[in-house]
Amino acid sequence: MKPPVIGVFAASPDGGRGLARDMAVRWALAEVGQAYELRPLSFADLKTPGHKARQPFGQIPTLEADGLTLFESGAIVLHVAQSHPGLLPTDPAARARAIAWMFAAVGTIEPVIVEREVAVLLEGDRSWTAERLPLLEARLRQRLDDLAAWLDGKDWLERDFSAGDIMMVCVLRRPAAHLLMGDYPVLAAYVARGESRPAFQRAFAEQKARFDALG
Amino acid sequence: MKPPVIGVFAASPDGGRGLARDMAVRWALAEVGQAYELRPLSFADLKTPGHKARQPFGQIPTLEADGLTLFESGAIVLHVAQSHPGLLPTDPAARARAIAWMFAAVGTIEPVIVEREVAVLLEGDRSWTAERLPLLEARLRQRLDDLAAWLDGKDWLERDFSAGDIMMVCVLRRPAAHLLMGDYPVLAAYVARGESRPAFQRAFAEQKARFDALG
Repeated sequence: MKPPVIGVFAASPDGGRGLARDMAVRWALAEVGQAYELRPLSFADLKTPGHKARQPFGQIPTLEADGLTLFESGAIVLHVAQSHPGLLPTDPAARARAIAWMFAAVGTIEPVIVEREVAVLLEGDRSWTAERLPLLEARLRQRLDDLAAWLDGKDWLERDFSAGDIMMVCVLRRPAAHLLMGDYPVLAAYVARGESRPAFQRAFAEQKARFDALG
Repeated sequence: MKPPVIGVFAASPDGGRGLARDMAVRWALAEVGQAYELRPLSFADLKTPGHKARQPFGQIPTLEADGLTLFESGAIVLHVAQSHPGLLPTDPAARARAIAWMFAAVGTIEPVIVEREVAVLLEGDRSWTAERLPLLEARLRQRLDDLAAWLDGKDWLERDFSAGDIMMVCVLRRPAAHLLMGDYPVLAAYVARGESRPAFQRAFAEQKARFDALG
């Protein structure tokens, strides 16, 4: 069987810090020991009909494997987790809980982080942005407060490390959340726990080496 | 077996229009013919430790069934779809595609809709909001353009109606998307196709009757 192919940024705007949405997919594949190949995509490639047939919104990552083309990092990580042992509990109830955290990561936590980032990236030159940033930070802190309360005293979101933790750690590594980690020692420790896993480190090193090789 | 219990707003701020996130769960349960009971929650209830033990972010919906407590509408709908036939293809690749659309609904489409709504709800009295709304609408239209291109000529997101359509239709019913449907006949027809399903109509009527009974 040919290894799966992940669609990634040809030159990630994060400068090799593993902040783009392919990082969760790389990490999941590294956790289950599945080798993969890359389809590097320029920003121009993302808007082509060929790419939009694979990813209707012109984003990364994509996964191509065994005739299946898949998009949305959460869906790809879930597919990897359902196709290999180790990233989801076998007990159905515990499995549903782990999947709930995947949805919480992309649907409840990530949007308030992205909104804070977009305020700077897309509206940084607008007169209102300085005044809006504290409002956005307050909305983000509300979610982080709840997440930190949940994680207090726990190693992972549920008993065992799961695909839910992969998604959540990747979301918390984004710049707007990272900025606040000094105020959230429970979350900072959780992220560090994820980053210290050998599979994370392998996946991180691979994307970093690829970025560095761009010169 | 006792029927599952869904945590819902005691008095939904949508006035019985089925726009809160429990609608997708009600619809999914109606599609598979599973009766359910309700746990009505006031806004004060949402912030209690008891509710946050069920829903760490103090939101609705929740699902309690057979000793499992679950949160995130996408995760609950997926759990319903995995526990009953009819809402996901049996072919693994087609199943993964349907799940990808669930993630796209909550992670790619819903955030730009919510951001447009939040601008009015939370910043409606701010000096910058009138000037920001066109920017937010442009970001939302970018996603709707791509989604309409994908759906053009199709009845559903993939060959068969699935849990992905339940999530996407519910997201597109939200006010900020609904406002633009006049410009997106393909999406308007898609939403109408979802709303015309008998299970949607049953679920909608149930929540409407409940709201009306509040007097």
